[in-house]
Amino acid sequence: MAKLRAVLIGATGLAGQQFIAALKDHPTLELTGLAASPRSAGKAYADALKASNGMTAWFVPEALPESIAKMKVVSGEEVQAKDYDIAFSAVESDVAKEMEPRLARDIPVFSAASAFRYEADVPLLIPPVNADHARLVREQQKRRGWKGYIVPIPNCTTTGMAITLAPLAERFGIKAVVMTSMQAMSGAGRSPGVIGLDILDNVIPFIPKEEEKVQVETKKILGTLDAAGAAIASHDVRVSCTCTRVAVMEGHTESVFVSLASKASVAEVVQAMREWRGAEVSRNLPSAPPRWIEVLEDPFRPQPRLDRDTHAGMATTVGRVREDSVLENGFKYLLVSHNTKMGAAKGAILVAELMRAQGILG
Amino acid sequence: MAKLRAVLIGATGLAGQQFIAALKDHPTLELTGLAASPRSAGKAYADALKASNGMTAWFVPEALPESIAKMKVVSGEEVQAKDYDIAFSAVESDVAKEMEPRLARDIPVFSAASAFRYEADVPLLIPPVNADHARLVREQQKRRGWKGYIVPIPNCTTTGMAITLAPLAERFGIKAVVMTSMQAMSGAGRSPGVIGLDILDNVIPFIPKEEEKVQVETKKILGTLDAAGAAIASHDVRVSCTCTRVAVMEGHTESVFVSLASKASVAEVVQAMREWRGAEVSRNLPSAPPRWIEVLEDPFRPQPRLDRDTHAGMATTVGRVREDSVLENGFKYLLVSHNTKMGAAKGAILVAELMRAQGILG
Amino acid sequence: MAKLRAVLIGATGLAGQQFIAALKDHPTLELTGLAASPRSAGKAYADALKASNGMTAWFVPEALPESIAKMKVVSGEEVQAKDYDIAFSAVESDVAKEMEPRLARDIPVFSAASAFRYEADVPLLIPPVNADHARLVREQQKRRGWKGYIVPIPNCTTTGMAITLAPLAERFGIKAVVMTSMQAMSGAGRSPGVIGLDILDNVIPFIPKEEEKVQVETKKILGTLDAAGAAIASHDVRVSCTCTRVAVMEGHTESVFVSLASKASVAEVVQAMREWRGAEVSRNLPSAPPRWIEVLEDPFRPQPRLDRDTHAGMATTVGRVREDSVLENGFKYLLVSHNTKMGAAKGAILVAELMRAQGILG
Amino acid sequence: MAKLRAVLIGATGLAGQQFIAALKDHPTLELTGLAASPRSAGKAYADALKASNGMTAWFVPEALPESIAKMKVVSGEEVQAKDYDIAFSAVESDVAKEMEPRLARDIPVFSAASAFRYEADVPLLIPPVNADHARLVREQQKRRGWKGYIVPIPNCTTTGMAITLAPLAERFGIKAVVMTSMQAMSGAGRSPGVIGLDILDNVIPFIPKEEEKVQVETKKILGTLDAAGAAIASHDVRVSCTCTRVAVMEGHTESVFVSLASKASVAEVVQAMREWRGAEVSRNLPSAPPRWIEVLEDPFRPQPRLDRDTHAGMATTVGRVREDSVLENGFKYLLVSHNTKMGAAKGAILVAELMRAQGILG
Repeated sequence: MAKLRAVLIGATGLAGQQFIAALKDHPTLELTGLAASPRSAGKAYADALKASNGMTAWFVPEALPESIAKMKVVSGEEVQAKDYDIAFSAVESDVAKEMEPRLARDIPVFSAASAFRYEADVPLLIPPVNADHARLVREQQKRRGWKGYIVPIPNCTTTGMAITLAPLAERFGIKAVVMTSMQAMSGAGRSPGVIGLDILDNVIPFIPKEEEKVQVETKKILGTLDAAGAAIASHDVRVSCTCTRVAVMEGHTESVFVSLASKASVAEVVQAMREWRGAEVSRNLPSAPPRWIEVLEDPFRPQPRLDRDTHAGMATTVGRVREDSVLENGFKYLLVSHNTKMGAAKGAILVAELMRAQGILG
Repeated sequence: MAKLRAVLIGATGLAGQQFIAALKDHPTLELTGLAASPRSAGKAYADALKASNGMTAWFVPEALPESIAKMKVVSGEEVQAKDYDIAFSAVESDVAKEMEPRLARDIPVFSAASAFRYEADVPLLIPPVNADHARLVREQQKRRGWKGYIVPIPNCTTTGMAITLAPLAERFGIKAVVMTSMQAMSGAGRSPGVIGLDILDNVIPFIPKEEEKVQVETKKILGTLDAAGAAIASHDVRVSCTCTRVAVMEGHTESVFVSLASKASVAEVVQAMREWRGAEVSRNLPSAPPRWIEVLEDPFRPQPRLDRDTHAGMATTVGRVREDSVLENGFKYLLVSHNTKMGAAKGAILVAELMRAQGILG
Repeated sequence: MAKLRAVLIGATGLAGQQFIAALKDHPTLELTGLAASPRSAGKAYADALKASNGMTAWFVPEALPESIAKMKVVSGEEVQAKDYDIAFSAVESDVAKEMEPRLARDIPVFSAASAFRYEADVPLLIPPVNADHARLVREQQKRRGWKGYIVPIPNCTTTGMAITLAPLAERFGIKAVVMTSMQAMSGAGRSPGVIGLDILDNVIPFIPKEEEKVQVETKKILGTLDAAGAAIASHDVRVSCTCTRVAVMEGHTESVFVSLASKASVAEVVQAMREWRGAEVSRNLPSAPPRWIEVLEDPFRPQPRLDRDTHAGMATTVGRVREDSVLENGFKYLLVSHNTKMGAAKGAILVAELMRAQGILG
Repeated sequence: MAKLRAVLIGATGLAGQQFIAALKDHPTLELTGLAASPRSAGKAYADALKASNGMTAWFVPEALPESIAKMKVVSGEEVQAKDYDIAFSAVESDVAKEMEPRLARDIPVFSAASAFRYEADVPLLIPPVNADHARLVREQQKRRGWKGYIVPIPNCTTTGMAITLAPLAERFGIKAVVMTSMQAMSGAGRSPGVIGLDILDNVIPFIPKEEEKVQVETKKILGTLDAAGAAIASHDVRVSCTCTRVAVMEGHTESVFVSLASKASVAEVVQAMREWRGAEVSRNLPSAPPRWIEVLEDPFRPQPRLDRDTHAGMATTVGRVREDSVLENGFKYLLVSHNTKMGAAKGAILVAELMRAQGILG
């Protein structure tokens, strides 16, 4: 089977770089086009990465593939949908609003941007959690008259939490979540991203718009698609977050307090997470990890530096599952999720794999 | 009025160093004795600080006073209560269990150790919050047949939270608290404390025994001393915490979610904190700050590096006061509290000042 | 004596912020005007500091003075020399090239920018080292027909090294210097400055143009003004540097290897530094420290976090003076110099103080 | 061919952990014994790693192999040479002095400790640089009456520099080296190693004994074994270092200034490094990288975080090769070398591989 030709828009940013690393040697997708802002257009990709002081701004631990380094970057406006089978989008939200619909007229667009996440006919997919929401794109195509569609992935802070809540919602029901995040710097991208002078020896207690995203997205992801496949009813779980930034390269840490709808023991909560395999269709996708959740027994884990790369950054690691004395049927735990792998580029690729597995790709 | 002669036990540790810095130029207290482990006994204080590689382990930003550097350290066992008016204790809990009662037979002991915090006849004092608990020491003296007494201060993570809860408890009543802390490295002391290899590019999600301390202490501090002054009834607020360590030098950051007993608006919550002056007797103590709580308007504050030293490290800074959608009459905010100033050495000195102001010192 | 009215151009950058902190409560200078880019013009200073995400980008440890926070920022082009007695410049080099000469037609300009450092009629002043170069501004005024003049300060990496070389050059003569720097992040400013993702768990081995600056400037600073006061003959010391960036907030650390022109012992080298008081006129300037150089005995010092603020950031701390086995009459040592205090804003203010003391101000 | 049975002494320390990670899946060596201090004896390895606060102190990025986690640790004194074919030693120097000779009576000991590095009959091997020194162990066996022998590897700071000097010494001759290091925290081990409070926002300018080691070892490594194979004449290059510690996890960065014995251009120096393949016998060892030195063209490289793992941590990366104006025929460059891979555990394994390839193993 020939590989699908993929174009990446927003190729020079940090999220774009993660897409490049993740698509290297992908079995069914091939990156054949790179787009960025007009400032980068016409340059070889490696040159387009040069910062104003001359430093090559490649932030991903994996090496920049030679073939990509030399590939010519085009301006986003010049991308022709007809040259590609699918598009990945790593642009900022305001650019996404213009660029993604133009491409979606013809081809599927998998996006890390928030621009369309909250539209009624747009699913917000985490394959093991809500693969069944995927067919909402048929409604989207119908309403908008598109041959393609847009599927965004959730905010990187939402992803890990939603994955750990899914088995609890399925097994016990969930009523409320209180969460405090300690987020990695890579989530802020690189222009300018988080300045060293701001974050060394410090915690920044506010990430604009982040908390609202997590609160709304969690309810949508855990929601229910109606029988007609035309609308998602959000889950009625109440979610309240405080999001902070810490001096960590990659990997969001989240302190979660959850109220279950029915009684459970710590052992049952742990078991629910450990046994959970997610939607059947998601289990054998090329980028799927052996388990979506790893519950660790060492009380000093998970730690972002040690655990973010579990199963190639596609697993959410959980630790310190304990009873909570405040919430009804309350439990508390910590999780680490790789914000630019499962939470961004590789998460979007996983969604593309899901759509292909479900026959909704093209 | 002659200054009181104070002895410091546990002088070489990080908490001990903070006592030394805080007592320099104190108007009513003079450090006339330094005690540490037998290994340090007989050495000049500066020599006792040398680590095995020869590095002088003085961690406090303020310079080591010349006079202290040269003062001879004695072994804790050699300290004679008759040579001092009061004692400050910065030893580990197991050492405190032996050493503090021996001194308390004759003189008051103000302690940063947890050894006696949970005894029924021992108050846990934060002067603006519960100065009225101070007279429990009379009961303690009676029961134990001591001329002195022991007053421990709370765990450094408890202090900032209890201070911010006090005005809410007084004005609205409080029913429950959910808190996640991001604690500074200095809280772990220095032998070995937090190893650089563990904390750089990382978060450590567990601090042994810390959560239990915060949960129990908060209830005791906010509790009520009975009319006879013989016992404290703990406050019935439910408290649930998750405590983590981050790569910050000093200053604990805490993300607090609180359920009030009655309705309030964000403005009223902020006003309650801003107007709060604490117990009257606490306001003019030598180490008291102009305000115990500073509510900041910038949504990116408080930050530990920028705000920990507010009012010489004696104020708790608060920011991002918002409604919370999960708890009943819920509000959420962040706070920063200096863990080795108000949360340790200077906090204990403040308690000594309180006892003197109340005439219970000696 | 009335205070001189000073305008600050480049007020919003990191160097500008350091000028503001340093001029607060200055005995003879008063900041009466703030200028920045047209983007900031018309805003209150505190508002002009807001980054795109809304975060107030005030990086200096000292609090932003209330009066400055409210002062209206004007565009650099609008500044009228007639409204001020002197100007401080904290703009980038390309802006300096246009703006500084315009102001220098009428008033003295003290600049942290490199734009004019290498012009033949421009002195590069470090008051204790080469106060006698100051009168070169008379030649500058004559040649350019200006009533004012421009005096730049050296690059922040040059300053500490030149100060430690001065007593050696005076006492023994110096022939060559090999230096490797480990520079703080604040030296890179804040837009974008050093990105957290670049510097955490890392060293960046290159700072564009930095090494050339240090090499040329050191020779000029240590050079000799001719009898006519019309030209500086550079010192013939050979200087070779490698400049790197490390994860430090403030304070440049430099590892220096120096070849003296005559034999000396370690004790004599230390003594030369310890006894050095610099040019007589520099000793009583308002911002002068009690000693320009502090030689520390602890072999683990100087450390940037512990020593950068020695004498309010105006002293260079030195440690580990040893013989070197490679260079002729070789010695090696480390130094720490506060790059944004003595190395930038306060260094420029010191130069203004020097010019006033020498009667060349206005 | 059966794998050789290896015992590791000092298994719980950081260097020991690196040996464990490096020997996992090794083609010709199998770790069949783990020894540590009496305190760890009798425990499963994973339990022996627990710190006093209960945290498992496994610092190596690679996961702890299951089989090793369960292996029982014995006390060093209990190790019987007859149960093993070779020994690896990761103990402290004072322990090495007792333990290594006892084992060497019967089997070869490859050691990361410094105890025997400076003995006249002990080679200090870096396989590509001085494989021909290996036969000095025959002299050692003869003199000491041992069936086995001791071969230490150099200090981790020496290794990278010696490797980059080797091609220059071979092609041009070298006369002098001035070096400043910025060393990673892992070099200090873990008990206590570098404390977070010491290194965050800081540089520590002194590492006891480090400079002397680098200076002496470099001359020995680059020296000449006499025809009888009985003694090494040290190279007469003069070496002068300043060694510092920075907040980096792994990977030492070194700023090198070298004086060549004959004229060369930058291009020739780069070419000499690029073309260098080292001793022929070293090239196909199981742990040998494709090239020992990688010269990078990006002036912002090498960086420890980005380059330490080049060729699995076995390559030394070099950048910024430039002329130096102070030393005769002077050149300067920076290098990054992985201090716990090529500079420690994997470097020692490489030496064992070399001895086997040369038929001197057992």
